[in-house]
Amino acid sequence: MRLYYSPNAASRVAHIALVEAGADYELVLTNTRAGDQRRPEYLAVNPKGRVPALETDQGVLTETPAILLYIAQRFPQARLAPLDDPFALAQVQARTAFLACEVQVAFAMHFRSYRYAEDPAAQAAIKAYAPTALAEKFALLEDMHVGPWAAGEAFSIVDPFLFVMTAWLEEEGLCDARRFPKLQKHASKMRERPSVKHVVAVEGPRRLS
Amino acid sequence: MRLYYSPNAASRVAHIALVEAGADYELVLTNTRAGDQRRPEYLAVNPKGRVPALETDQGVLTETPAILLYIAQRFPQARLAPLDDPFALAQVQARTAFLACEVQVAFAMHFRSYRYAEDPAAQAAIKAYAPTALAEKFALLEDMHVGPWAAGEAFSIVDPFLFVMTAWLEEEGLCDARRFPKLQKHASKMRERPSVKHVVAVEGPRRLS
Repeated sequence: MRLYYSPNAASRVAHIALVEAGADYELVLTNTRAGDQRRPEYLAVNPKGRVPALETDQGVLTETPAILLYIAQRFPQARLAPLDDPFALAQVQARTAFLACEVQVAFAMHFRSYRYAEDPAAQAAIKAYAPTALAEKFALLEDMHVGPWAAGEAFSIVDPFLFVMTAWLEEEGLCDARRFPKLQKHASKMRERPSVKHVVAVEGPRRLS
Repeated sequence: MRLYYSPNAASRVAHIALVEAGADYELVLTNTRAGDQRRPEYLAVNPKGRVPALETDQGVLTETPAILLYIAQRFPQARLAPLDDPFALAQVQARTAFLACEVQVAFAMHFRSYRYAEDPAAQAAIKAYAPTALAEKFALLEDMHVGPWAAGEAFSIVDPFLFVMTAWLEEEGLCDARRFPKLQKHASKMRERPSVKHVVAVEGPRRLS
């Protein structure tokens, strides 16, 4: 398998999951600051022009919730999702969907406000509103967090996703992360895991864009 | 099971899937024009204040991609997803994730621009940009559409989702739907299905908000 990634982009979620799964994989750097994701070579892999993409022996997968579900199914011995319990598996997917559709979108308002308006003044207003949108989403995440892990008792594919989102919030200083003590504690536990240490060492700590 | 819905809102996707699955369910009207989704009674069901929510005997599920996966697993005889093929199932989830995270977000720029900025002028700019964002997303959907169904040869949980999105595009006149002939053909085929006829008859054709 080959993971197309950009340092500390959303692709980090799948990267951590691959390590947790014990998968064999190669990394392909797709520098989003340099616009690699919009080059023809990459669009041939993922016409949507986004990272991550996961090339498998059956074809290319995109969208973090789908890539995570694939990793969990492909490496069942790693027990990264409750594969035999339809309700619990759907709950896991509800959490990854919320992180992808709501939390990541609120971050995109900060990082990529040009996705939501053409006018520069409107883009500035969107970026200015991102901390409010993020605070609302993270308050929901904090309330939903039963712990110790993101989906409850068992570590799962939700954990790397929740971790990367909380880490972005802290790193970007978009709102006071101390308002979310359960999520901060979760992020601290994640930082102790060998998978996260490995991925941060390989990718480097900084986002490129 | 009880589906909390608002007429022709995103909840219509799960509604169609429940009919296709042959499920027993009750409907609970949650009128989003009247703000029912923000009332304490509903927030006790779904603290996120969005429809749909699906109440099951194991608890409440939210997020359309997760609800769809649950319906497919709970009613395997309806064959609404390739449950025994991890790659194909992940592809199905990639499509529902794209529809939820990208296409629905572009519609929200039109319907609910207040989610993305506080300033009224910026909200107007976001709404004005929605047709451009939608045209880009639907061009990708059209390119990805191999057919006859949204995930290829077999009808699946992706079909009601793709259908509701294409129908919104046509109904709102946000961009010329004739630019997407494969998707229009798909929507026409969907409109012939008893499930869609039933749901449109029950919900009524119009969005409330």
